[in-house]
Amino acid sequence: MERINTSIKTAMENHLNNLTKPLGSLGNLESYCVKMAEIQKRVPPKIEKKAVYVFAGDHGVAAEGVSLYPQEVTRQMALNILSGGAGINALAGGTGWDVILVDAGVSGNDFPADSETKPLCYFFRERIRQGSGNCLRESAMTAEETTRALERGKALARDAVNRGFDMTAIGDLGIGNTTSASAMLVAAGFSSASVVDRGTGIDSAMLEHKRVVVEEAARRANVPPGDGVAILRELGSPDFAMMAGFILGLEGTGIACVLDGFPVTSAAFMAWLINPKISDWLFAGHLSKVAGHKPVLERMGLEPIVNLNMRLGEGTGAVIGGYIVELGVLAARQMASFAGAGISGSSITEEKF
Amino acid sequence: MERINTSIKTAMENHLNNLTKPLGSLGNLESYCVKMAEIQKRVPPKIEKKAVYVFAGDHGVAAEGVSLYPQEVTRQMALNILSGGAGINALAGGTGWDVILVDAGVSGNDFPADSETKPLCYFFRERIRQGSGNCLRESAMTAEETTRALERGKALARDAVNRGFDMTAIGDLGIGNTTSASAMLVAAGFSSASVVDRGTGIDSAMLEHKRVVVEEAARRANVPPGDGVAILRELGSPDFAMMAGFILGLEGTGIACVLDGFPVTSAAFMAWLINPKISDWLFAGHLSKVAGHKPVLERMGLEPIVNLNMRLGEGTGAVIGGYIVELGVLAARQMASFAGAGISGSSITEEKF
Repeated sequence: MERINTSIKTAMENHLNNLTKPLGSLGNLESYCVKMAEIQKRVPPKIEKKAVYVFAGDHGVAAEGVSLYPQEVTRQMALNILSGGAGINALAGGTGWDVILVDAGVSGNDFPADSETKPLCYFFRERIRQGSGNCLRESAMTAEETTRALERGKALARDAVNRGFDMTAIGDLGIGNTTSASAMLVAAGFSSASVVDRGTGIDSAMLEHKRVVVEEAARRANVPPGDGVAILRELGSPDFAMMAGFILGLEGTGIACVLDGFPVTSAAFMAWLINPKISDWLFAGHLSKVAGHKPVLERMGLEPIVNLNMRLGEGTGAVIGGYIVELGVLAARQMASFAGAGISGSSITEEKF
Repeated sequence: MERINTSIKTAMENHLNNLTKPLGSLGNLESYCVKMAEIQKRVPPKIEKKAVYVFAGDHGVAAEGVSLYPQEVTRQMALNILSGGAGINALAGGTGWDVILVDAGVSGNDFPADSETKPLCYFFRERIRQGSGNCLRESAMTAEETTRALERGKALARDAVNRGFDMTAIGDLGIGNTTSASAMLVAAGFSSASVVDRGTGIDSAMLEHKRVVVEEAARRANVPPGDGVAILRELGSPDFAMMAGFILGLEGTGIACVLDGFPVTSAAFMAWLINPKISDWLFAGHLSKVAGHKPVLERMGLEPIVNLNMRLGEGTGAVIGGYIVELGVLAARQMASFAGAGISGSSITEEKF
């Protein structure tokens, strides 16, 4: 994919400027359209089929008491998604996304044999290992596991092409994953103060404990701050590495990808360290309420589409933001042109109707 | 309608807190749900049928050269909406709203006899007069016309009940209407600097001319700043008065109303001067790029749902924001409860999954 395809950008802008509205008056919806046109190399772009991939995995660092939920909630919530009862099922259903649950590294028994046949959710059996290592005390994964998770992520991107998706989104599920995500970012050079979040109820003592764990883990890892693969191996997880591989694998496919909140964006940042061109096919679905989200998006040059103070994960913010991109594309495809509708004064740009 | 119904609020919050997500993690979607529950007096609320009312009318002040579009564009754009080719048709279609075009005061011949039978848009023939008077030099309407426009707006609110709408939105269409809207707000006590917008291309000379017209018109009107009816009569229009009547008429119906941008919000502010309780059933669909929008929303205590730098009008921002309210309601209705899904640790609130 070329970074900027000037002729497609110009063609898309001309298309938008001929529609029956004051120039530029659809605001951000127009820039989303232009970006989609550049990704798809198509004017106007189309969005007919889309899926949110929820990458689930356990995080060994949960053993350090950084999360107030027991680890088994990861598995319970995965089953809830498979049954259609989670937040992502409702919001993806309301905005026309297929839901795909990917078991990248959940702990415990494999998911039931009938998981692939649920009517409300696709299930991809991709488990690399049962949870990551406790990154405070050991590598999160071996080098081989890291490579395998990245490669399986890329394979899922190729599979997305075969399934005909025009747009994808990424969600996360995993108790303790904000701690691993923060540790990855500290290893990449962010200050722990900017990426360790207080949440809505953790007291000062627990926040301080979480910050110490994050800083100690990053120190133990001792990896170069620009080495996304090494950071994923030491401090990440199979689910984070698979997300990164998926994003990298979308290069040149014409498929856009919408990020959810803090954990997903942290994994995307590791992919960005590997290949900063990924920002060209990424959208930031929303700005979450988790404090570390904003600085990471800014580093990748991504502006969140909505800010609804959400912090649920699972891709819930991504599907809302992605739907607004789709609405922009819909307007570009369905609106009449000035000439076609016989509207006067189309050359005059300054006033709203 | 009571201002706050504590038991409904508590019941709705309890319902949300039992769903399979960390407490409060759906952020603003949860507050929208609570507000909808209070409006409908129903836990959880429902949104099954909704319509955006586009009130169209010409504004005599357009003769002062404050708009760069010729006045006939109002009529041409109205016909475009009736044919399904406008921005509002695309965005309302994509988010499940019926579109209703209301001819409150368009200039020129009546709309064609077959306008009511268009497949893509309802048409309400409610014309009070052909355009408003030029408010710089004369009253925008007579007292009788003002009363009739307000009453017809209230009648449309009763009609919305009969049609079974759970949620409504308001859009505007009318060349010159930002000038009338600004004049109304200046008469109501806002500074012209805060409500006269530069737009994206008007030069300094034209901006200064527009500001002078707005200030002179407000001075000519010479009405008490708290008298919404008098301001509508002197500086408003049939479309603005009908919007205000519609909003006032929704009191006690259980139907919510989502505002669009600057002109609609200015008309709503006149309704607010008449009855400040209206904020209880209003949502601010978006924050538009028009400068005066924000201070008026703030006076009514309304927070915009999205900010997408749009300034198209027609209800295009309202239908997007309203759809996000609907997604919140959908989540509240469809998600499983902790007990139902067998998830551990539901009493612990601080950590995201």
